[in-house]
Amino acid sequence: MPIHERMKRCQERVQILLERYLPYPQASMPLYNAMHYACLNGGKRLRPLLAYLTADIFDTPAEVVDPIAASIEMIHCYSLVHDDLPAMDNDDLRRGKPTCHMVFGDATAILVGDALLTLAFEILSTSEHSPNVDYSTKLQIIRVLSQASGASGMVQGQAIDLAAEGHQLELAQLIDMHNAKTGALLSASVQCGALASGRATENDLFKLQNFGKAIGLCFQIQDDILDALGNSEIMGKHPGQDVKKNKCTFVTLLGIEQARAHAIDCHAQALLALEHFGPKADLLRALSAYIIERVA
Amino acid sequence: MPIHERMKRCQERVQILLERYLPYPQASMPLYNAMHYACLNGGKRLRPLLAYLTADIFDTPAEVVDPIAASIEMIHCYSLVHDDLPAMDNDDLRRGKPTCHMVFGDATAILVGDALLTLAFEILSTSEHSPNVDYSTKLQIIRVLSQASGASGMVQGQAIDLAAEGHQLELAQLIDMHNAKTGALLSASVQCGALASGRATENDLFKLQNFGKAIGLCFQIQDDILDALGNSEIMGKHPGQDVKKNKCTFVTLLGIEQARAHAIDCHAQALLALEHFGPKADLLRALSAYIIERVA
Repeated sequence: MPIHERMKRCQERVQILLERYLPYPQASMPLYNAMHYACLNGGKRLRPLLAYLTADIFDTPAEVVDPIAASIEMIHCYSLVHDDLPAMDNDDLRRGKPTCHMVFGDATAILVGDALLTLAFEILSTSEHSPNVDYSTKLQIIRVLSQASGASGMVQGQAIDLAAEGHQLELAQLIDMHNAKTGALLSASVQCGALASGRATENDLFKLQNFGKAIGLCFQIQDDILDALGNSEIMGKHPGQDVKKNKCTFVTLLGIEQARAHAIDCHAQALLALEHFGPKADLLRALSAYIIERVA
Repeated sequence: MPIHERMKRCQERVQILLERYLPYPQASMPLYNAMHYACLNGGKRLRPLLAYLTADIFDTPAEVVDPIAASIEMIHCYSLVHDDLPAMDNDDLRRGKPTCHMVFGDATAILVGDALLTLAFEILSTSEHSPNVDYSTKLQIIRVLSQASGASGMVQGQAIDLAAEGHQLELAQLIDMHNAKTGALLSASVQCGALASGRATENDLFKLQNFGKAIGLCFQIQDDILDALGNSEIMGKHPGQDVKKNKCTFVTLLGIEQARAHAIDCHAQALLALEHFGPKADLLRALSAYIIERVA
């Protein structure tokens, strides 16, 4: 199956899962409507896809990965809602629609993020959602995801990003920031897909971690290039935000051409990390290629 | 040991635990300093105390409860930081000091809350922190805490509270709101203390849930009374905030005397729920009495 087709199927699957796990919308609870709005907005579902494709390598059925995939996507969506807040990146457009706080107000958007993050851990700890994953593995998955999302992962990356606004960073610092901000959760997504199988070795996890970091950087560099070149119709968000906010990006630091070369290098590293898994990882390879080629 | 002495010892213990679990402060990471500021601020540590005192009933050593107590307190501290934000309750004073966002800015305060909530689940899922609690129990604790903290618990309560500002609520609605906003996490604290023992029955947990809800309401009513009567020197926050914000409280709805009578009724319900446990629950009884008698 070509990667685009697999991606589309994953998007449909995650849509159904999120609708199942999110609290049922009620007129009297704007919070619940806002949680739906924040999650069911046509996202790429890249992180769930990574978890499913990695689980494939270990012949793990998608049903086993479902609660993990939904939880990871909720953590990702929470981070977008909080990042978009006026106190943070102050973005009014996300995936072609007004951001959560533009529709529901800042207070509800803060609570939406809090609720989605909490719900992710509730789903992961609920036995009925994943009867085929043993307790020890579930705890390992919760640990990997919380480490990747918190003060030594995604939240740390966001904090460094905020502190760096208006400052020049060195390339190594920029890479560290994005490893934390984006790479950690992408990396956790592949690791959790492997963990769900109950059969991944330490070495498997190590290789997958490297793969996750490599495509994380690749993704970010491509994002910076798209922001510099793109138009809002394709991207679903305003381009040129980075320059407007005086943000240090791979493009401001390296220029378009060198940034692109760096992305190609990351793609090569991603492929290197996958060698260990043979042809079973072909869809992960195709996904890495998609990331570097994407235009939105 | 009198309850005040026990409370003081718990406060010292939780202080040490939080210092151990929080990321080490660094000049280059305001996020970490802000996490310390938000947690190490002389809080009452009521929720950890509830967990320890409940564990006592089941002869569970404090060491087993430590990671649970620290996690619960982090969840509580995160909720205070987010509640205090300008977009939410807009409070500038907490426990006698400027609130987190007043010192570190709104963006960092949002991230502090996110990081503390995430760290709570990281601690609970990390084997080394609680080698004596079995995997199944750990997952149950994560589930109880996430349910109590999320969109059907604390966050829901906060959402209802925000939506209710400026509106008149009926007594039943006000009680529902506070059951979600405060009662759920207090109730989860006692339940987790019992779960840590690995010996609590369904009936034990049911009684403890009722106890938690009762003292939750008692605590809130007393808070409303203190806000109406108190002075900022004793309380460490500005009194009269409820009236200023046109908030519906037990005092605005019932008046001081009837509100006090309702709190006494909740205390009686708390004691009733504890009958089942005999003299082993004497410190929980004393704590309920403390809640109704407290002046700050």
